[in-house]
Amino acid sequence: MSRTVIRGGLVITAADEIHADVLIEDGTIAALAARGTGAAATWTADRTIDATGKYVIPGGVDAHTHMEMPFGGTYAADTFETGTRAAAWGGTTTIVDFAIQSKGRSLREGLDAWHAKAASNCAVDYGFHMIVSDVTEDTLKEMDLLVDEGVTSFKQFMAYPGVFYSDDGQILRAMQRAADNGGLIMMHAENGIAIDVLVEQALARGETDPRYHGEVRKALLESEATHRAIKLAQVAGAPLYVVHVSAQEAVAEISRARDEGLNVFGETCPQYLFLSTDNLAEPGFEGAKYVCSTPLRPKDHQAALWRGLRTNDLQVISTDHCPFCFSGQKEMGRGDFSKIPNGMPGVENRMDLLHQGVVDGHISRRRWIEIACATPARMFGLYPKKGTITPGADADIVIYDPAAEQVISAETHHMNVDYSAYEGKRITGRVDTVLSRGEPVITDREFTGRAGHGTYTPRSTCQYLI
Amino acid sequence: MSRTVIRGGLVITAADEIHADVLIEDGTIAALAARGTGAAATWTADRTIDATGKYVIPGGVDAHTHMEMPFGGTYAADTFETGTRAAAWGGTTTIVDFAIQSKGRSLREGLDAWHAKAASNCAVDYGFHMIVSDVTEDTLKEMDLLVDEGVTSFKQFMAYPGVFYSDDGQILRAMQRAADNGGLIMMHAENGIAIDVLVEQALARGETDPRYHGEVRKALLESEATHRAIKLAQVAGAPLYVVHVSAQEAVAEISRARDEGLNVFGETCPQYLFLSTDNLAEPGFEGAKYVCSTPLRPKDHQAALWRGLRTNDLQVISTDHCPFCFSGQKEMGRGDFSKIPNGMPGVENRMDLLHQGVVDGHISRRRWIEIACATPARMFGLYPKKGTITPGADADIVIYDPAAEQVISAETHHMNVDYSAYEGKRITGRVDTVLSRGEPVITDREFTGRAGHGTYTPRSTCQYLI
Amino acid sequence: MSRTVIRGGLVITAADEIHADVLIEDGTIAALAARGTGAAATWTADRTIDATGKYVIPGGVDAHTHMEMPFGGTYAADTFETGTRAAAWGGTTTIVDFAIQSKGRSLREGLDAWHAKAASNCAVDYGFHMIVSDVTEDTLKEMDLLVDEGVTSFKQFMAYPGVFYSDDGQILRAMQRAADNGGLIMMHAENGIAIDVLVEQALARGETDPRYHGEVRKALLESEATHRAIKLAQVAGAPLYVVHVSAQEAVAEISRARDEGLNVFGETCPQYLFLSTDNLAEPGFEGAKYVCSTPLRPKDHQAALWRGLRTNDLQVISTDHCPFCFSGQKEMGRGDFSKIPNGMPGVENRMDLLHQGVVDGHISRRRWIEIACATPARMFGLYPKKGTITPGADADIVIYDPAAEQVISAETHHMNVDYSAYEGKRITGRVDTVLSRGEPVITDREFTGRAGHGTYTPRSTCQYLI
Amino acid sequence: MSRTVIRGGLVITAADEIHADVLIEDGTIAALAARGTGAAATWTADRTIDATGKYVIPGGVDAHTHMEMPFGGTYAADTFETGTRAAAWGGTTTIVDFAIQSKGRSLREGLDAWHAKAASNCAVDYGFHMIVSDVTEDTLKEMDLLVDEGVTSFKQFMAYPGVFYSDDGQILRAMQRAADNGGLIMMHAENGIAIDVLVEQALARGETDPRYHGEVRKALLESEATHRAIKLAQVAGAPLYVVHVSAQEAVAEISRARDEGLNVFGETCPQYLFLSTDNLAEPGFEGAKYVCSTPLRPKDHQAALWRGLRTNDLQVISTDHCPFCFSGQKEMGRGDFSKIPNGMPGVENRMDLLHQGVVDGHISRRRWIEIACATPARMFGLYPKKGTITPGADADIVIYDPAAEQVISAETHHMNVDYSAYEGKRITGRVDTVLSRGEPVITDREFTGRAGHGTYTPRSTCQYLI
Repeated sequence: MSRTVIRGGLVITAADEIHADVLIEDGTIAALAARGTGAAATWTADRTIDATGKYVIPGGVDAHTHMEMPFGGTYAADTFETGTRAAAWGGTTTIVDFAIQSKGRSLREGLDAWHAKAASNCAVDYGFHMIVSDVTEDTLKEMDLLVDEGVTSFKQFMAYPGVFYSDDGQILRAMQRAADNGGLIMMHAENGIAIDVLVEQALARGETDPRYHGEVRKALLESEATHRAIKLAQVAGAPLYVVHVSAQEAVAEISRARDEGLNVFGETCPQYLFLSTDNLAEPGFEGAKYVCSTPLRPKDHQAALWRGLRTNDLQVISTDHCPFCFSGQKEMGRGDFSKIPNGMPGVENRMDLLHQGVVDGHISRRRWIEIACATPARMFGLYPKKGTITPGADADIVIYDPAAEQVISAETHHMNVDYSAYEGKRITGRVDTVLSRGEPVITDREFTGRAGHGTYTPRSTCQYLI
Repeated sequence: MSRTVIRGGLVITAADEIHADVLIEDGTIAALAARGTGAAATWTADRTIDATGKYVIPGGVDAHTHMEMPFGGTYAADTFETGTRAAAWGGTTTIVDFAIQSKGRSLREGLDAWHAKAASNCAVDYGFHMIVSDVTEDTLKEMDLLVDEGVTSFKQFMAYPGVFYSDDGQILRAMQRAADNGGLIMMHAENGIAIDVLVEQALARGETDPRYHGEVRKALLESEATHRAIKLAQVAGAPLYVVHVSAQEAVAEISRARDEGLNVFGETCPQYLFLSTDNLAEPGFEGAKYVCSTPLRPKDHQAALWRGLRTNDLQVISTDHCPFCFSGQKEMGRGDFSKIPNGMPGVENRMDLLHQGVVDGHISRRRWIEIACATPARMFGLYPKKGTITPGADADIVIYDPAAEQVISAETHHMNVDYSAYEGKRITGRVDTVLSRGEPVITDREFTGRAGHGTYTPRSTCQYLI
Repeated sequence: MSRTVIRGGLVITAADEIHADVLIEDGTIAALAARGTGAAATWTADRTIDATGKYVIPGGVDAHTHMEMPFGGTYAADTFETGTRAAAWGGTTTIVDFAIQSKGRSLREGLDAWHAKAASNCAVDYGFHMIVSDVTEDTLKEMDLLVDEGVTSFKQFMAYPGVFYSDDGQILRAMQRAADNGGLIMMHAENGIAIDVLVEQALARGETDPRYHGEVRKALLESEATHRAIKLAQVAGAPLYVVHVSAQEAVAEISRARDEGLNVFGETCPQYLFLSTDNLAEPGFEGAKYVCSTPLRPKDHQAALWRGLRTNDLQVISTDHCPFCFSGQKEMGRGDFSKIPNGMPGVENRMDLLHQGVVDGHISRRRWIEIACATPARMFGLYPKKGTITPGADADIVIYDPAAEQVISAETHHMNVDYSAYEGKRITGRVDTVLSRGEPVITDREFTGRAGHGTYTPRSTCQYLI
Repeated sequence: MSRTVIRGGLVITAADEIHADVLIEDGTIAALAARGTGAAATWTADRTIDATGKYVIPGGVDAHTHMEMPFGGTYAADTFETGTRAAAWGGTTTIVDFAIQSKGRSLREGLDAWHAKAASNCAVDYGFHMIVSDVTEDTLKEMDLLVDEGVTSFKQFMAYPGVFYSDDGQILRAMQRAADNGGLIMMHAENGIAIDVLVEQALARGETDPRYHGEVRKALLESEATHRAIKLAQVAGAPLYVVHVSAQEAVAEISRARDEGLNVFGETCPQYLFLSTDNLAEPGFEGAKYVCSTPLRPKDHQAALWRGLRTNDLQVISTDHCPFCFSGQKEMGRGDFSKIPNGMPGVENRMDLLHQGVVDGHISRRRWIEIACATPARMFGLYPKKGTITPGADADIVIYDPAAEQVISAETHHMNVDYSAYEGKRITGRVDTVLSRGEPVITDREFTGRAGHGTYTPRSTCQYLI
């Protein structure tokens, strides 16, 4: 039996901040004992980690990544290997990526393809959501099977007509099925049909710069779609998880639904908390770096998002990590913002940016862990195996130095992309050491993991439904 | 060093449900270890409790009791001795009772009096809130001192003119002071001035039966006062805790405030979840048993309260335990409902009634512990010492049998009052054993505690303010 | 010069109730004079109508009729001749009917066809809205031309996929055009895509009776579409008129939009005020008589609609008159509710039913005239020519006996349909005499008009936009 | 019989804009006839007024004035003679002033005193509301009598403790009485108890300048009181009219109540539409000129008020005319803003300022007349005698030149006060001629009226209750 003890740190979970030592046996958390008790004193171990002055936190759970995702004729630049390595560097020990059904093909075929991409390549554990592009009788039946094998969440798009888009009937059918089989529908909520009209009109007026991406994808068209998805879910009797909420009007719709007691959940991402349309309007073609959908919003939306995180109208922070290099990829959209691949890098920065949110007074330390670790794990059926530090849980643990200073930069980050959306941003706090199922993946800021350590993690259904 | 181990149970906290063994050293929880780990196996103990098939839960925290309270010319029938013993029987190991300032006297005098009543008499631990009946410059200064010594919450009344009533200026001043010193204002939110007009008019019309108590204390006058208290708190920049919320319209006001990100909190009580105006209208003078303020509401309000508990628009369940015997006390109001002492017994029934709420599907097990243990402890500065099971916490632990059946009755309860508000109600679930700081107070349904074991517990300030 | 004087009545308009005599010169209202003044005394006339004890009200304006409308393989049973004659019997002197663009054809072609149907056939004046089934660049340009020639409102459907349905992009484009040319978009707001899924599922379950029509066309899918239309109009900067609102949730959406100051308007119909899903569930196939879309709702929605009419969240009462005979037409849907032609008769009953609403205390007399005459005239650019009694207006006047009693019945009505939706309903109030531009069309309850008297009335744009 | 004809103007009422001639017989409007009709042509008259190119509008109804009002140890500077003369100059032909009950005295005594002040002194017609300072059984009975004699509205204050203040019980009692006798409670809605605390604290901090008047009388304390008044009215089953609404949060409360169908009404005043806290902060002691309660608000509240006027969440514009000279009166508050007499002049400026609102695009012409003439007349039982131009109405008519330009100034105004709150403001539009019951009071911008022409006008009850 291999035993590791972490001593001297402040263990922070969504529920508690305690001065406790942590005992790991064979990759699993065996026990927690209060500092200085007899119980703690008796522990012996193969490896002792000194966490004095540090936080001992659960490894991050990033429930929204797109490694190697095909989009607009190119592929997201991070492979599962580079992407999960970067995740580890950033203190994230579980990702849930999106397998994609192609139109006319089965869910199974898509899922198998994604399994093949990830297998033997990941530095940390991973699971899959399934993007449903084509709702048919067969697809609906496959949903049941996928739930049984641990793919318990299904993403649909109200945007991207002709690509991922589902119409309201397809959405309703999938929701009805999810209501039956326990699945959770994740929704990209933007009225893509209306947006495409505005895109065409903008381009016709010669408005081709990246900043027009933010203007045509209007906040009202995000909140409209959010409201619509909520009503369809209500008709279906199904829960709903709205991905990458960026508009304050959309938060308001989610808030209204939750006040009524509906099982409606909202996710936002660090880019919406720290960046804005000001970035999209950066001179030259620089704005392309910040093109993602839903788009960045004017700065005053940020306060509404932080408030939503505090009031629990938003529950999860993911990254929507989907990096495209500026050079050669983002540049495909010069002269036509609609051709810029949608997506930004971020899987490595999430835990740090949110800790900065703690330092800035936006959220408490426990809430940091809750929105970044515990709630995504509960939401997607990984808790308490992932997302917390408790006896019986996987020993996915980060030793975090709350006092260290760092500057985010493409020169030092580990994601496979040639720019950082946060270039030059100063952050207080930094990952020191990362354990994945007890194995050191990052050790005192050295990568000590390996491709293939990370394993596929089937998931149970959403734990918030009552 | 005394050591106790609890083995084989399902440990349920607000955050987790884990199969773990619990080690207690000298009255404090020393460690938790996953069932079957090496860590757990090595533990030796003076006493081993077998919790197989049982829940191991934190002792309940009842943040709203009135032992020996003077009201309407009589006294609440439970002393600190009988009341805390009944609390223990019901799985509650901490109460926060209300010390009362008399008009024209100091807070100190009131607090000292309550300390004297409680000292050496309690079976479980206790703390105090302070009822502020008379806001003066001196009183405001005393508030600072009380916060420093662990009385960090102050109750004011918008009801009971001439007795506990504070006007809006007095409320504003106290809130401003609380905003400065970290105190939390607890509010009895009913428009007592308007209610007294309706009482007088009802009596003049010959409407003297207990059910008129429910008719004159209108839901709109609860929601009005709730809204007013929220606005005053907003002006003062202070947090607000609304006690015993019973009207759905009041829940809506709290929900609206919380959506805006205000530090507004709401408590409700089991009587509002399980009883209704139907009880107030029971034949003869039976309705008097259910006279409390805020009053019971029509049945359809219950769903809104349960929903509020699920959506976290209501955060805490307390009892407002304030028992008056039917015979001799409640009877003072025959022929004039306004003379019926306001209050009901309940400190013994809270944990069980809420577990019934779990069984009935209203809330989850974790939410049960959250609203009955963890949140009241956090709200009133007792966490993590009280309200959870985690290394370092006080070993206030209940072994709860979720499968046992019981029938609530005055014949079998331990409160010092001659009736039960839930007479004959069948409950699934029952307390087996209760530890207070490691000491067995109830052992396999025998009282093994003693008056004087319970100690005064000073409190830090509310842990929900950011 | 022909002169008519109406003496002795109570002239009721949306603004006033005055005891005044009315002088008509050559089909136009020349003057109003207070009873008994010198001015009134001097008038001489060719014809004097004694209105003593009667109301003198503006002729009704029914802004939503479908004469001879093709639907589901058949035609609405009233021609412009029979339908406008029935309108006159019911005190309505102006209708605005819907010309229909067929998919792939021009607006012009549709409008010309409807002009041909109506010309020389109408007993009272008429105008046209245009149903836009096919939004193309050409169609959008034609909208401008139609506005110029007095067809200033355009209806789109979010229901009926494959028939009248427009997608959100087509709606947005039409709204943008309306924002430019002053047109008003009228919306059938139901999520037809989702409804079709529910229809298919219901039929598959063997739920084929008329009452399932009401179950599948859910209130939530009306309110969803209403919200969506509002947001699209907001994006386009265009006004919006929602037709035949029946769900209380939809009223709430309109109310919310109006509180924000948006130019959003709502119409309801007498069937939603007086009938309910109880009628749809009448035994046998009787429910088919009440099949229309939006569908009848449960009874408790009626109170919300009446309240909306009082609070001005709903502004207009039209009939959506679209009669199909039970025998041979409604019967097409035996065994499949989705094949029942959607529509009900009502053009003759509107003024009387609303007067009953006055008698029942739902609305005031002035509000009756406002929602049935003045506001539809203003909304659709006919005021003050139509919809009021004021110097310069067309002499479209009804002498209404508020004390007469009648029983509605298919045996006595004048619509060309074999049943009445209000069979046997007792009404207080009845039309005595109707003038259309000064000509008696109904004289003491005799039809004295003629096909061809009614002329096409071009309309200016909506008068509520500021 | 005296006859006047007004020819050639555009007659504008709340309902209509028509090209019509107006015939006046003996002070009453006898008839309206469309321009150029035979009916109009035959009229002969003693006096003909040529209104070509002008508006012919109803005389204004100012439902909120305080002539000679005692306040803070001084008196409002306008007597009924000077104030009503100024009103006439400004196109207002009816005022409703506030008679005051002194504490401990009867309503009758107060009303008699105000009758004595007004009798034989007024240039235009007047009525009275009654300020109820002391709710007793006797007072409540007197309310019934006053309603019978035409004083049908009663004002209470939630502000000014110790002076006009009523507590919630007194308010509830008066509202209950009004619910029975048809009276309308008018409310000054500010939480005066809380405000007095803030005043005391501000003065203690040395914040004595006029601008602090605006800071202590917080918008939240206006909206709180507005909400409370609404709830009390709901409990009493009574209608409510909220005077001088200035905070957007208060508008929101009224809007919410009206959406629910409650008989709740709101008034605002020109000062809140055109002035702001910027004026209160003018250098030196200049801000004192703008001290009134409710206070002026930050500029962004203006948009909410204009929107409320458009959406009909606010229905009436009055002036709250209560002028105190800067010299000798306002100066009483140098060094202590709480001693500045509360009130501003304005009775002469209302119609012009609102016409400027028409010119600026805030409201339509008809809405101008509605909020300034028709609705106040209906609200307070004066319609259609006052507030419109219709046969049978009093010939209170203004010939208004919409193209004239003027500059508001204390040098040219006719109010008895040494400053203008709008000094130097340019206005498009000006009163030319004013008739009061047919008598020229202003003739081509000469005062041709006389003290004593104006007569007391008893009022029926509110015409908006259904």
